[in-house]
Amino acid sequence: MPEENRPLALTMGDPAGIGPEITAGAWQALRGGTIRFAVVGDAALIARHGVPVRDIGTIAQVADVFAQAVPVLPVALAAPVTPGQPDSRNAGAITTSIARAVELARNGQAGAVVTNPISKIVLKKAGFAYPGHTEYLAALCNVPGREVMMLACPELRVVPITIHVSLRRALDELSTEGIIAATRTTHAALIRDFGIAAPRIAMAGLNPHAGEDGSMGTEEQTLIIPAIETLRRDGMDITGPWPPDTLFTPPARARYDVAMCMYHDQALIPLKTIDMTNGVNTTLGLPIIRTSPDHGTAFDIAGRGVADPASLVAALRMAGRMAEHRNPT
Amino acid sequence: MPEENRPLALTMGDPAGIGPEITAGAWQALRGGTIRFAVVGDAALIARHGVPVRDIGTIAQVADVFAQAVPVLPVALAAPVTPGQPDSRNAGAITTSIARAVELARNGQAGAVVTNPISKIVLKKAGFAYPGHTEYLAALCNVPGREVMMLACPELRVVPITIHVSLRRALDELSTEGIIAATRTTHAALIRDFGIAAPRIAMAGLNPHAGEDGSMGTEEQTLIIPAIETLRRDGMDITGPWPPDTLFTPPARARYDVAMCMYHDQALIPLKTIDMTNGVNTTLGLPIIRTSPDHGTAFDIAGRGVADPASLVAALRMAGRMAEHRNPT
Repeated sequence: MPEENRPLALTMGDPAGIGPEITAGAWQALRGGTIRFAVVGDAALIARHGVPVRDIGTIAQVADVFAQAVPVLPVALAAPVTPGQPDSRNAGAITTSIARAVELARNGQAGAVVTNPISKIVLKKAGFAYPGHTEYLAALCNVPGREVMMLACPELRVVPITIHVSLRRALDELSTEGIIAATRTTHAALIRDFGIAAPRIAMAGLNPHAGEDGSMGTEEQTLIIPAIETLRRDGMDITGPWPPDTLFTPPARARYDVAMCMYHDQALIPLKTIDMTNGVNTTLGLPIIRTSPDHGTAFDIAGRGVADPASLVAALRMAGRMAEHRNPT
Repeated sequence: MPEENRPLALTMGDPAGIGPEITAGAWQALRGGTIRFAVVGDAALIARHGVPVRDIGTIAQVADVFAQAVPVLPVALAAPVTPGQPDSRNAGAITTSIARAVELARNGQAGAVVTNPISKIVLKKAGFAYPGHTEYLAALCNVPGREVMMLACPELRVVPITIHVSLRRALDELSTEGIIAATRTTHAALIRDFGIAAPRIAMAGLNPHAGEDGSMGTEEQTLIIPAIETLRRDGMDITGPWPPDTLFTPPARARYDVAMCMYHDQALIPLKTIDMTNGVNTTLGLPIIRTSPDHGTAFDIAGRGVADPASLVAALRMAGRMAEHRNPT
């Protein structure tokens, strides 16, 4: 099998969410192109949304099937699916889909993993012990704690250095070492998977006005500037700490390839405010490439035919481009 | 003197910043209209920017002068001004300008105060004891602690409930009482000064995903929801606590008149990301109307003829509209 155009492995996500619907929509958007995927899930669920589907035995068959039907590597569901009504009995199928997709990427048969949204609440009831997809993927890849979340839309890339913890705990967890580690992972990924030879990195401050010389907080001096100095000695093109509120304006965004952010909403507010439909979540620091749409299961609109596949399409396209950068044809 | 069309009192701001230049630009933009202002400052400084100026003795003369020249109520400078090089010897003139403008608004001669940017660092050296304009104005009006900062652009109004303190201190200061007080002040101002009969208020959460039912922080349950419940009993149309990252998308913004935010950057990041040029800062909770442009002194570009007066023009227009709402003609 040639290295180029390896198919992507798309997980099922929560079958009661909008995953099946946006999967059908994404196939319609991409069927004529060079970015192809196999769904690791249940064919009948996708067929409900008016697209042809075909079970396949190996992901290599995607090349022959994709133009005609959604190729599906079957994973059996434990309970019937009603859109909008998640059922913890299907938790095993949801996590099996993720684990199989990761396996396909790790052994080189898939170019990347793209994940449909899951509900932590549903999985938690079934014993799932991870705060989310990202941490589960890091565990599956045997690199727990190495994962870095990057959100990207055409206008902006952001990395929240602390993620799914309370704001108070984010302040407690923020460290020079954590900033350095996340920035190194991000820098390496921008070179390897995004084809940016010399990434320009903007480091956000933590406090209003980046602390205004210590008058509104000192973490800039005690934590962030030492990290910047270490990273500069590594040879990185890195600026900051910048006042957070002016870091995401159009002229500011033009001056960097990624903004390293100190907490979840410092990164996510500008990203979602700028582009609520084309945001892609990608996990850096794993041995595999992984992207996902930047939204949840949307149980409230599932099955009504109104879900927008744009973010999933963007996630599939980004995964395809990243795989191409990592293994150029 | 009729109540309608009372002139606005525009402070000089730091004379070494872009204040004089954007004041000249604002007069050019507004000279033909019904929103008129007097500068409380130095006429020669403004004349440098190629506009006619005229010293006046009382603000009532603005009506006769404004179409021909920038009317100036003189405040003497203590030291010559070099753009971009602030001089603490002028701190007295800067604060005198603010105090006189406030006096004009308090005694009803001016419809509102509009302030040009000041530099806290410059004023601090001269003994200025306030974190910023907002707190100084509250002290001048004898309502210290009652001030509420609102930022507005055509697409969005936001109120940061905690303001110019470190993020850690913002978490410590946030309280149910503080949320209630700021929201009541905001609600009253939207009715009285913005002509919104039944303001729709969106309350942001503090934590990622608004805490996700307590799994990522509990301030939503312990502080924010109790405030919302109290305010609802007051009869307010109030929703939340909302996940902060999706609160500022276009469809979300369409559902509220103001977003109450828990900390500075939660409010300022979306505002400045959406509109970096037309943002207006207004202080609610004072007996007077006060607005200002949403930017600083910009010493780095002062005197080069490149400063954009758009935010000051927007601040003057908003002040004029607010005065009209408060005292309809």
